[in-house]
Amino acid sequence: MITLKIQTHAKTELVDITQQVQERIHQSGFREGLCALFVPHTTAGLTLNENWDPDVRRDMLLTLQDIAPADPRHRHGEGNSPAHLKASLMGASLLVLVEQGSLQLGSWQGIYLAEFDGPRHRRIQIKLVASAD
Amino acid sequence: MITLKIQTHAKTELVDITQQVQERIHQSGFREGLCALFVPHTTAGLTLNENWDPDVRRDMLLTLQDIAPADPRHRHGEGNSPAHLKASLMGASLLVLVEQGSLQLGSWQGIYLAEFDGPRHRRIQIKLVASAD
Amino acid sequence: MITLKIQTHAKTELVDITQQVQERIHQSGFREGLCALFVPHTTAGLTLNENWDPDVRRDMLLTLQDIAPADPRHRHGEGNSPAHLKASLMGASLLVLVEQGSLQLGSWQGIYLAEFDGPRHRRIQIKLVASAD
Repeated sequence: MITLKIQTHAKTELVDITQQVQERIHQSGFREGLCALFVPHTTAGLTLNENWDPDVRRDMLLTLQDIAPADPRHRHGEGNSPAHLKASLMGASLLVLVEQGSLQLGSWQGIYLAEFDGPRHRRIQIKLVASAD
Repeated sequence: MITLKIQTHAKTELVDITQQVQERIHQSGFREGLCALFVPHTTAGLTLNENWDPDVRRDMLLTLQDIAPADPRHRHGEGNSPAHLKASLMGASLLVLVEQGSLQLGSWQGIYLAEFDGPRHRRIQIKLVASAD
Repeated sequence: MITLKIQTHAKTELVDITQQVQERIHQSGFREGLCALFVPHTTAGLTLNENWDPDVRRDMLLTLQDIAPADPRHRHGEGNSPAHLKASLMGASLLVLVEQGSLQLGSWQGIYLAEFDGPRHRRIQIKLVASAD
């Protein structure tokens, strides 16, 4: 298992981890198959989205804030229930295909750690699986 | 393929299936790779989230209710369009990494069947895939 | 890698790709394991949901519109930040289990390309991975 360690710097943030994932695949010598990523956290998730205009990430986080706002009806003592829901909306696992050692991403696509209750130390676990075709 | 059968007991509910998934992995003798989970249903999903304070699940379901409320503009005759959307928001498939026969979950992380139109009999399908590393 | 090419026809649309995915699996001769699907786009996603009543898809897209509306606070120049967020809410990757060459879907379950900024030419990338069990 490959483990990336990421220090986040804000309460909510989309951190581009594409380069680090790609480097680890190169180091492993893996060529063809799936790259499975997993966050072992409950207030952070993983997502793929645009890596060009930073305003896309800003706008996404703004609307996610509207979708899962602080709510006086929430009972969880830590007060971070919105972060837990946002983590589930993004998801804790994702897959990217790999060919000839390279992540098969779209031209404008990056892999993001979605922090919703930072700043924190976060980990991302990765496993590589060979494909049949 | 491993199949878990789950009886849900409420309209909306997050049912912790972590233990059952782990037991089936132990029984299979599988050691290293990916555990892929899938729900063959359209009003239930799968998610990972906190397994400690039950108020986290309660708060998440409350906000999901606000996100996808009953709506007089909906046309689907069964009246459960919000349940269909919530299932897609959580997702029907997920991955957890396995090392030395154990699910590599975070300390506070459980695997949940997300029921949005219960109570019902639900199934979860599991396949185990060996990793290259 | 298998690549499907899909032409979408509306701004937002759920396009059933189940048949095309199944045909490609038959052609490949693949029998047992995982079918991993990935969209290399940032304003389209993948989801599983009901393939019977088209009103389910219509109702889902209607509520997604409410969840991620146009917003004057958004800064991204293309004006499609809601499409980017909806793509992340659905997700860019998913898994379906395969047995005896057949996708193991529920009776009412189809695989959908979720278009949020069409009409466009879209691609779906697929890899097949043999399972250990």
